[in-house]
Amino acid sequence: MHDLEDRYVNADAELIFGQVELCVLLGLRGQNPGALLLLEIAFIGKGKEQDRLSQTFEFNLSEITQLAQHEFFMPGLVDTHIHASQYSYAGTALDMPLLQWLNTYTFPVESRFKDLEFANRVYTKVVKRTLRNGTTTACYFATIHTDASLLLGQIANDFGQRALVGKVCMDRNNSVKHYKETNQECQEETCRFISELLNKKYPLVKPVVTPRFAPSCTGALLEQLGAIAKNNNLHIQSHISENVEEVKLVKEMFPESESYTHVYHKYNLLTDKTVMAHGCHLSDEELDLFRQTGASLSHCPNSNISLCSGVLNVRKVLKHKVRLGLGTDVAGGYSASILDAMRRALESSKVLTIQDPEHDTLTFEEVFRLATLGGSQALSLDDQTGNFEVGKDFDALRVNVAAPGGPIDLIQSEEPKILLEKFLNLGDDRNIVQVFVAGRKVVPFTDATPE
Amino acid sequence: MHDLEDRYVNADAELIFGQVELCVLLGLRGQNPGALLLLEIAFIGKGKEQDRLSQTFEFNLSEITQLAQHEFFMPGLVDTHIHASQYSYAGTALDMPLLQWLNTYTFPVESRFKDLEFANRVYTKVVKRTLRNGTTTACYFATIHTDASLLLGQIANDFGQRALVGKVCMDRNNSVKHYKETNQECQEETCRFISELLNKKYPLVKPVVTPRFAPSCTGALLEQLGAIAKNNNLHIQSHISENVEEVKLVKEMFPESESYTHVYHKYNLLTDKTVMAHGCHLSDEELDLFRQTGASLSHCPNSNISLCSGVLNVRKVLKHKVRLGLGTDVAGGYSASILDAMRRALESSKVLTIQDPEHDTLTFEEVFRLATLGGSQALSLDDQTGNFEVGKDFDALRVNVAAPGGPIDLIQSEEPKILLEKFLNLGDDRNIVQVFVAGRKVVPFTDATPE
Ligand SMILES: [Zn+2]
Ligand SMILES: [Zn+2]
Repeated sequence: MHDLEDRYVNADAELIFGQVELCVLLGLRGQNPGALLLLEIAFIGKGKEQDRLSQTFEFNLSEITQLAQHEFFMPGLVDTHIHASQYSYAGTALDMPLLQWLNTYTFPVESRFKDLEFANRVYTKVVKRTLRNGTTTACYFATIHTDASLLLGQIANDFGQRALVGKVCMDRNNSVKHYKETNQECQEETCRFISELLNKKYPLVKPVVTPRFAPSCTGALLEQLGAIAKNNNLHIQSHISENVEEVKLVKEMFPESESYTHVYHKYNLLTDKTVMAHGCHLSDEELDLFRQTGASLSHCPNSNISLCSGVLNVRKVLKHKVRLGLGTDVAGGYSASILDAMRRALESSKVLTIQDPEHDTLTFEEVFRLATLGGSQALSLDDQTGNFEVGKDFDALRVNVAAPGGPIDLIQSEEPKILLEKFLNLGDDRNIVQVFVAGRKVVPFTDATPE
Repeated sequence: MHDLEDRYVNADAELIFGQVELCVLLGLRGQNPGALLLLEIAFIGKGKEQDRLSQTFEFNLSEITQLAQHEFFMPGLVDTHIHASQYSYAGTALDMPLLQWLNTYTFPVESRFKDLEFANRVYTKVVKRTLRNGTTTACYFATIHTDASLLLGQIANDFGQRALVGKVCMDRNNSVKHYKETNQECQEETCRFISELLNKKYPLVKPVVTPRFAPSCTGALLEQLGAIAKNNNLHIQSHISENVEEVKLVKEMFPESESYTHVYHKYNLLTDKTVMAHGCHLSDEELDLFRQTGASLSHCPNSNISLCSGVLNVRKVLKHKVRLGLGTDVAGGYSASILDAMRRALESSKVLTIQDPEHDTLTFEEVFRLATLGGSQALSLDDQTGNFEVGKDFDALRVNVAAPGGPIDLIQSEEPKILLEKFLNLGDDRNIVQVFVAGRKVVPFTDATPE
């Protein structure tokens, strides 16, 4: 009955928060949507249940792969907000606030993605890099260029990354001459992008409706994009309330709206498939509107600090029961790693505690959850990914805390919680020895991996 | 006349801030203190001066090593504050404030260094790790154990790291039963430590007088240690004003002193060879006292955030003309890398800007300076190291920004400033392809490197 492909015994690590299984057996079940074999989790059991499970699910105990000491599986990391195009200048240009930064660095670079050769070079590097960093699911901003955005979708598919890909829309207020569209172009090209991407029938790559942010869009454009998303039941992504000047600007540009959040709400851009980046300066009322609509937030702490935008109070967001994931926001954030986003999220929370000792600091377990299940919830993909649950796809990292040549020194053998904490604080791609997306091993890259 | 060992042409990078030399030739001159050949910088010239320099300094142009593209040399990194013993739990145990953290995690672990086998294991790992991370100079806290502290000095010497090593002194207020000394033991063992370490005649390793911090020391002990430092013209290190509870505690314990800084000053522990870690909560008057005495600060931003201790205003310290370097403060800081300390220092400065937009944010060039020359000044070692200057020792990192398998993707060739910024934000030990201390190549490790 079950097409079992691969099985693992996780000898000494709890697999994830909340699932303290000292020995966990994972069974994977094949599916076949389109031409690709996708593997989902068929069962999860304890190691001592091997015999019974092998009979129920008809596999031989000899087929089980035993993890080495200091290894464990964890759910794949979810990057809920990353600008694939900006990867070309990641790690530089962090010396001015948002609005000036966009005009000085971002728009000139993004305008280069008209050149498909350049786009191919950058998009290949960002997809490979994020996969190596353990990002099994990424929610990408591309640029305004439809063909380059389609190329990004193709590259993600070729490398086997689960991705939402957005062709960026902006029809006003851009200081860079060759980097803008008319309202009509935005609308037509968005429709072309969506239909061409859907036509590819990539099993793991979906289009996402992407107004850059309110200051770059006329009300007319926002309204059209809200309608397109609704008519096609699509995901939506944008930015909100990142820095104080931006909030003021939106107030001036949309004087009829009660708040920044109400601008998006008015145009039907807040849905249960919407993810908005940042939200550093949202009021309680705005957070309530997020909860009511089911829209979620992408917390991008590296970017928020690097551009001096603000510090999001994640505890407050969680108390408002707004779904929240982590994002790198490359290149406002300099790092394309969700490990970095976890560290910066913890730090941001500790900065709030320094300012107010009553603040309830996030724990590393909570931040780990935001980076995995939280991210999948923020992207409304938690029916498929985010943790290890029977029926979900097998999106996973095989982590070796003591990987040779890696960044972590273990002095002695350590309990699972310590191994996880060391990896989260000190680990890097050298510790991520394998990456699986929907059961397919996508890292390490093979000779067959497209260049 | 000059014993030239090695020469490099730095093809496309400025070597350091302030020395914009598109092509730099480095000549090294041998010295011979004791049995070891130390190499100092004999000249610095531009590449186009090759011919003249080769005649003046009598070397053949064929001996010049040409750096590859995307490579550059930079001065070695200086860690002005690191607890070698705490490396065993680095990356864990960051969930409580300083005073509780010491009793819960630190003292129990440090008490294990009575065991020389354990000490050898941890100290070997921390010296190798910090060297790989580019730390050419480290100012270490060991533990109260004299023999283990001497072992740390030996290991640093064997691997070729420049180091100040301190046997920790504490004669009160320690909740851990087996981890304390009497006042007399402190004094005797400190003297034994100093004389035995000096007797080894290690060319690059020196003892440093190390009261843990005021709350762990009686006034009598502080007074004795001040006298020992003065009589032997030694370096001094300790902690100051890390968190608010600690400051309050010191006020209660030393009611006769005007401030925390005055406690150390009273016992002659503030000299121009003193480095004090943290200083987050120092007043203007205390900073003035630092300047007057010539004592310096070690800024440990990872630790300050991780333990929710506070955020040091570096700009204020610099305005008071107090010398300042960076420290990892392992394991209050989770990372043993000064690259991390630079990133956290920049972030801390940006957090201050978020709180007060008038705050004059540090630049990455300034933070780079703190990690190199600033550190050497803070440790009063700037006559020997900290930057590339004729007569100083050659403490250097050979950096390859595009190292294969490394963490940085270069999309196109970039100017030197961008290469440096990418390395500082995104680089790791994989980019540090060689490390030199006093002209000796200490990384990569060779088969001859002691295990
Ligand atoms: Zn963004
Ligand atoms: Zn310390």
